[in-house]
Amino acid sequence: MTSSESTPTANRTGLLFALAQIDTCVGDLEGNAAKVLEYSRNAAGHGAQVVVFPEMTLSGYPIEDLAFRATFRRAAWQTANDLAKRLQQEGLAEIFVVVGTVGTDREHDRPRNRLVVLHDGVVWAGYDKHFLPNYGVFDEFRIFTPGERSVVLEIHGARVGLAICEDIWQDGGPVAQLAKQHIDVLLTINGSPYEEGKGHVRQELAARRAAEVNAPVIYLNQVGGQDDLVFDGGSFVVGTDGQLLERSPQFREDLGFWHLDLDGQAGEGQEAAQPATLSPALDPDEEVYQACVLGLKDYMAKNHFTGVCLGLSGGIDSALVAAMAADACGGEHVWGISMPSMYSSDGSRDDAADLAKNIGAHYEIQAVEPLFTAYQKQLHLEGVAAENLQARIRGVIVMAYSNTHGLLALATGNKSELACGYSTIYGDAVGGYAPIKDLLKVRVWDLARWRNRQAEALGEQPPIPENSITKPPSAELRPGQQDSDSLPEYELLDKVLAAYIEHAHGRADLLKDGFDPETVDTVMRLVDRAEWKRRQYPLGPKVTALAFGRDRRLPVTNAFRE
Amino acid sequence: MTSSESTPTANRTGLLFALAQIDTCVGDLEGNAAKVLEYSRNAAGHGAQVVVFPEMTLSGYPIEDLAFRATFRRAAWQTANDLAKRLQQEGLAEIFVVVGTVGTDREHDRPRNRLVVLHDGVVWAGYDKHFLPNYGVFDEFRIFTPGERSVVLEIHGARVGLAICEDIWQDGGPVAQLAKQHIDVLLTINGSPYEEGKGHVRQELAARRAAEVNAPVIYLNQVGGQDDLVFDGGSFVVGTDGQLLERSPQFREDLGFWHLDLDGQAGEGQEAAQPATLSPALDPDEEVYQACVLGLKDYMAKNHFTGVCLGLSGGIDSALVAAMAADACGGEHVWGISMPSMYSSDGSRDDAADLAKNIGAHYEIQAVEPLFTAYQKQLHLEGVAAENLQARIRGVIVMAYSNTHGLLALATGNKSELACGYSTIYGDAVGGYAPIKDLLKVRVWDLARWRNRQAEALGEQPPIPENSITKPPSAELRPGQQDSDSLPEYELLDKVLAAYIEHAHGRADLLKDGFDPETVDTVMRLVDRAEWKRRQYPLGPKVTALAFGRDRRLPVTNAFRE
Repeated sequence: MTSSESTPTANRTGLLFALAQIDTCVGDLEGNAAKVLEYSRNAAGHGAQVVVFPEMTLSGYPIEDLAFRATFRRAAWQTANDLAKRLQQEGLAEIFVVVGTVGTDREHDRPRNRLVVLHDGVVWAGYDKHFLPNYGVFDEFRIFTPGERSVVLEIHGARVGLAICEDIWQDGGPVAQLAKQHIDVLLTINGSPYEEGKGHVRQELAARRAAEVNAPVIYLNQVGGQDDLVFDGGSFVVGTDGQLLERSPQFREDLGFWHLDLDGQAGEGQEAAQPATLSPALDPDEEVYQACVLGLKDYMAKNHFTGVCLGLSGGIDSALVAAMAADACGGEHVWGISMPSMYSSDGSRDDAADLAKNIGAHYEIQAVEPLFTAYQKQLHLEGVAAENLQARIRGVIVMAYSNTHGLLALATGNKSELACGYSTIYGDAVGGYAPIKDLLKVRVWDLARWRNRQAEALGEQPPIPENSITKPPSAELRPGQQDSDSLPEYELLDKVLAAYIEHAHGRADLLKDGFDPETVDTVMRLVDRAEWKRRQYPLGPKVTALAFGRDRRLPVTNAFRE
Repeated sequence: MTSSESTPTANRTGLLFALAQIDTCVGDLEGNAAKVLEYSRNAAGHGAQVVVFPEMTLSGYPIEDLAFRATFRRAAWQTANDLAKRLQQEGLAEIFVVVGTVGTDREHDRPRNRLVVLHDGVVWAGYDKHFLPNYGVFDEFRIFTPGERSVVLEIHGARVGLAICEDIWQDGGPVAQLAKQHIDVLLTINGSPYEEGKGHVRQELAARRAAEVNAPVIYLNQVGGQDDLVFDGGSFVVGTDGQLLERSPQFREDLGFWHLDLDGQAGEGQEAAQPATLSPALDPDEEVYQACVLGLKDYMAKNHFTGVCLGLSGGIDSALVAAMAADACGGEHVWGISMPSMYSSDGSRDDAADLAKNIGAHYEIQAVEPLFTAYQKQLHLEGVAAENLQARIRGVIVMAYSNTHGLLALATGNKSELACGYSTIYGDAVGGYAPIKDLLKVRVWDLARWRNRQAEALGEQPPIPENSITKPPSAELRPGQQDSDSLPEYELLDKVLAAYIEHAHGRADLLKDGFDPETVDTVMRLVDRAEWKRRQYPLGPKVTALAFGRDRRLPVTNAFRE
């Protein structure tokens, strides 16, 4: 049945969609529902007839094994119904509110990843996600029962096809079904984590699907940090010809609008020639910097931390983390602790003090040497054990600040050194959050320079001391130590790490990539050993009848209370 | 086609199966192949015609994302071919060697969970696992492409149906197909992790399948610890009438034999009335104790540790862990460190010393107070921060022993206290392995008593001082502190924890279970907060383009080198 047969022509003038790109919190049914209500009011005030929210809006996403708790699913269902009634009580019964939530497959008593439409005081329609990604960071096939049918909504004469995230990434399934159903627009709600360059991939994919279903695609994405993922937003609308009709900003909540014009367009591409509101694309360094800051900011907010503490060594890693922290929560909520040892240079201490001053952080000095001496009176450690001792004393001090002031301890390790095991477990690795653990070292320098340039452009004091950027990196755990004593130069190391870890190149592939055998063997040995050591801590055996470990994968941030 | 049509009657006298219940190591292609060769020689020496090994024998199991590395899959394929040739070279070409390995789905270039038969110098036949478990501790759907067809082997006139582990746990699929194919025996190879009481469940299930396919079932299970899992072995053969025809022991490698008698039995139940070799079932406490010891022993062996270190407080938890460690690697490889503080009782120190003496461990005393005083001169901590400081000083000392002597540090926390957050991160939680983290506290006492009784029965010195078992538990972090100040009595607490965590009962369910509201709210609050805190450490954000975290799930124990 085509839309022209099913609806009066008079209604087919068009439809105003509001794109509610919001930041949800896993388990916080009440808070998420309140945000939906607020954005719906605002959207209705602008004359929108449909307001679209991200994947699993009410439950938050990803909810992992929280989905298996029946009490949570019941509470989520109640929340959707209450919200529909509340919208009606506020005179918003006319608007169509598209939200994601967790549903239940009653036949098997298992969770579903569901889209529901709230309208006229009730939960009006539902669609269940068909393709359940179970690769990379996704565990959905583990959790949800897949949906089996496509759904087309009729809203004021427009035929709106529905999809959830992965549904448009796979060929076949609901999109292939919708392609035969003469829809006017394809609406997809997403929880798509940030990756460098992914924005472009998403748009190309959506354009392909728009051509396939012969209708524009509305791509609405979640924004915000949730545990170890960052969602970048960047929602958009793309036409059947691949033209970008609307784009929301990245890394912040937004309410955008897009008008689907149906009048006189039936039978062809339905989108009108209207002025597009296109938020500008970000510079690659700015994009990654903002991803790190948003991840930290939301981790703090969703876990109820208002401040952070970290060791300031004067080096580039702790300097960049401190600058990010100041951007996330304000310098006055950052505690920087300088913990010089007998091997720390005066320059390092000055750089740490300068940084703290630049960002307006609390700055305290705690000497390591008296504590080191006390331990050594009893333990008489040598070599690596003695180096690790210095790092672990610092870890104990950082945690003392964390416990005393209720601060989130930040670990300052970067990906290059973590990958190579150039880090002390229970030492510098101490922390509840590691803002730059996914940045290779060269990228750390790039982001530091970018942040300073940005400050200069705004006429502000650049946060990171020039000396922290330019001096040769050193752990300062023994006299004259430099990173390059143990590791290849970072420019080379980072390239090998990217190939070995991210692109899963084996030894033969790496040699074919043009890396010399000595470097390849050094890096592979370091990475394999570090991965082995990292994974040893803190594992334990799992006698599964008595299980606590892997078979209960709850999110860190889980605001739900039964 | 029935077997009587397809094979000469002369051949149908029977078949001797060898049940090679071995302990493999993930990634150790060479070591696993050597073990297959050794057991095959032995089996052939006893006249076996078929020798059966566990799931993913050559690659080890579970191999997690190691399966995605193409170099590993190529090496595994090479290993299977080399092994077939080697068997031939040794004059063992006649025997049918059934092993598991990782295969490749060439169409999609993805891994498969595969059974292959080595015979006559070649890889003779293959079967791919159909049902891929993706719940609890299993991630197989994430990793493997499912197989689509059932396979029946013709071996000396016997029709042998094949299955891998989960294939017999789900209705339909390959077993349903085999039920129509007149097989003489169903052979299933498994990597089935230990759970309390699961042996019984496995046997009932296999008996049901034996009836379904109208043939005996050979259930061959892996044995040994692998990372955070323990496989208990306990392989068996069950007849069509549900009778147990053979059972291998739990928790150790074994080569069992079972004769499939075909002569004169065709058309009815084919198994012969032969004397069964049934290893005795274990006492429940002994079973759990052995699971913990084997988990630790294999974790040490597969990660190349020969000794362990741990703090000995004089309490029951560290005493039980030390006793297990002595059973795993010998008391002379155990370093027990007594770290008394100003709040430790004299009794505790004596109990720690007695324990070390009983098990023949190294025993050293490291005072906490001088170090505590040194920190407090700088930090002036109070309350919980000061309590945590004592625990963290102990953590630093334990790691100093670990680094200096190359020892595996053991964490001694039990499940009750870990679940309730009665533990200090970077303090008593320090360790690469936590042998009793899956035991509730009451079970800890039970196992200690069982171990002492066992020693008495053998005329040996009971390892655990009676006083460690009978005294009221205390963390001794402040004067007169007892666990019962902060926690419900363990007898009650453990019951609530089991219901809330293992059976996922919500608040309403727990009240219905008969627990009083105050206890329920206390325990739920403790568990939720502890889970939140535990999961905070050591997480970091995941900007997935630069990923290291969840999208690379390699086993801790990975002996493969590219």
